[in-house]
Amino acid sequence: MKVKELGEFGLIEQLAKIVYLARSKETAPGKRLIIGIGDDAAAWHGDAKVELATTDSFIQDVHFTLGMASWKELGWKALAASLSDIAAMGGMPKYALVSLALPGDTEVEDVTDLYRGMTQLGQQFDVIIVGGDTSSSPLVIINTTVLGSTKGQHMHILTRSAAMPGDKVAVTGYLGAAAAGLETLSKHLIFDPEASACFRKAFLQPEPRIADGQLLVEQGVKTAIDISDGLVSDLSHILKASQLSARIEVERVPVHPDVKANFGDRAIELALSGGEDYELLFTASAQVIGRVSEKASLPVTVIGDIIADKIGEITLIDRDGKPIRLGKTGWEHFATS
Amino acid sequence: MKVKELGEFGLIEQLAKIVYLARSKETAPGKRLIIGIGDDAAAWHGDAKVELATTDSFIQDVHFTLGMASWKELGWKALAASLSDIAAMGGMPKYALVSLALPGDTEVEDVTDLYRGMTQLGQQFDVIIVGGDTSSSPLVIINTTVLGSTKGQHMHILTRSAAMPGDKVAVTGYLGAAAAGLETLSKHLIFDPEASACFRKAFLQPEPRIADGQLLVEQGVKTAIDISDGLVSDLSHILKASQLSARIEVERVPVHPDVKANFGDRAIELALSGGEDYELLFTASAQVIGRVSEKASLPVTVIGDIIADKIGEITLIDRDGKPIRLGKTGWEHFATS
Repeated sequence: MKVKELGEFGLIEQLAKIVYLARSKETAPGKRLIIGIGDDAAAWHGDAKVELATTDSFIQDVHFTLGMASWKELGWKALAASLSDIAAMGGMPKYALVSLALPGDTEVEDVTDLYRGMTQLGQQFDVIIVGGDTSSSPLVIINTTVLGSTKGQHMHILTRSAAMPGDKVAVTGYLGAAAAGLETLSKHLIFDPEASACFRKAFLQPEPRIADGQLLVEQGVKTAIDISDGLVSDLSHILKASQLSARIEVERVPVHPDVKANFGDRAIELALSGGEDYELLFTASAQVIGRVSEKASLPVTVIGDIIADKIGEITLIDRDGKPIRLGKTGWEHFATS
Repeated sequence: MKVKELGEFGLIEQLAKIVYLARSKETAPGKRLIIGIGDDAAAWHGDAKVELATTDSFIQDVHFTLGMASWKELGWKALAASLSDIAAMGGMPKYALVSLALPGDTEVEDVTDLYRGMTQLGQQFDVIIVGGDTSSSPLVIINTTVLGSTKGQHMHILTRSAAMPGDKVAVTGYLGAAAAGLETLSKHLIFDPEASACFRKAFLQPEPRIADGQLLVEQGVKTAIDISDGLVSDLSHILKASQLSARIEVERVPVHPDVKANFGDRAIELALSGGEDYELLFTASAQVIGRVSEKASLPVTVIGDIIADKIGEITLIDRDGKPIRLGKTGWEHFATS
């Protein structure tokens, strides 16, 4: 059945059912919720923590193409991007609002799959979809807003503007697999099935680093961002907000092993500027990073230093400290400095 | 200059400046805000009130066409729709997130005008834009999320599901002018300048009934919705949520005088099903409505009764209690019951 046959209110009813079935009343957000889908606004009992809110749009033929991913994967990914922003603040996500624009001839089953992808991810973090909006539109547009808070009442948040000269730059997990996934799907590249599955999952079903973001807060980290635009681009956001610069030792960047094995010289480029890995990039003293590393469930890698130089500047260096840069075929050494 | 020449981060900087200049630190939301535009998520100090959240999409060629309105009007209207949802909960809006999708050849000045329209409306209600998202897109898409709370810690909220048999149905202000505005602009109708300006303003710069929503709460009203889809459609949302039915005396519906004067027989149709007037439709005892009416700055009109009959059914009646219905050329009497 198509969306236009079911109608807006029929569609909302089906989506509300999926959300209702996925929702646990035993979680903190479940207990505090007063009104979810079906009124003018969602309502819940607030508390005295620091509240967090973030929003992301996911637009057909800009952020995704319909043939490239299943609807369930699209739902997962759209929500994952906003959850990752809450992770990058060190927060705990609680509620989501989903604004959905769809052509009338979209299959209802596709839309319910989209919601299943979102609730499947949401359940992992006790996130409840509490409202939204549906419109007809020539393109599929998924807008997600996620609301959260600090985990405890007196916990600080991770900002982009708190980096200090002398901080080390570190990153969780491995980089480049999401960009490898985009290339694999858009260029129909063929690798061994395990690598292909890994790239696809990294690109379409990334894992927001919620627990790791909270660990950073607990261990005293003050500065973080999630890697959505790419390591270099996201680091520059931290540097501009903190009015500092950084030196990154390229060979330390934790390129995903499957990317290394399958993309040759381009692997480092995918890791540095591919984006959408949704790992956490953060800065802190070597000692604090050491503590994080001990307790984290993921590898944590130190990749460089925060320095007080030209604001926003990132110098990529090799293991001897010599600057290198990206040329047409990859990253190459500067001729001069 | 076009958006693609300025780039995403340059655009965000300009928009953040508009928001920053419009923002007062003396308001409650201003005092509690920790992080606005420019980090992974917005952050503010929460409190123990009931929190509210709502989201709306506003899509080119679905909800508006670019020639029909100025960009400032588009910004106003997009935000007004979400503020109105908070009004319909009896809440106080505090923060807004704006997700903006735009073609790269959009003029930067148009986008800054859009934001000026939003901040102009936002300032009326101490609402601060605290974040958002910008994407390139073939169509202009404006998604607004508004976060608010009850005004006081122990105040109730207005829901759709609290109507009771015996309640009167009432509405704030006048209806039909927004639909008249849509017709005026889309069909290039010509009326006297005052009526034209009134219709345009009603359609493109509606006033969310924030103070009136709060008054309803203070006076003991429990049930309300804002009129976005149209009186009949929005009343049916209340009836389905409350599992009741209603009888509406058509001649009591407060049709906007300029609509009456210029749309003849079609005036009542615009008032009953035109939508987007963003007035509040509510139910309560005659006594409670009397108290609201005394204190409201707008006219409050009783238009019918809530009854326990077939769930969701609305019977339109004339002054003698006879059912009438909408025919091809307007609203006409039933032949039988």
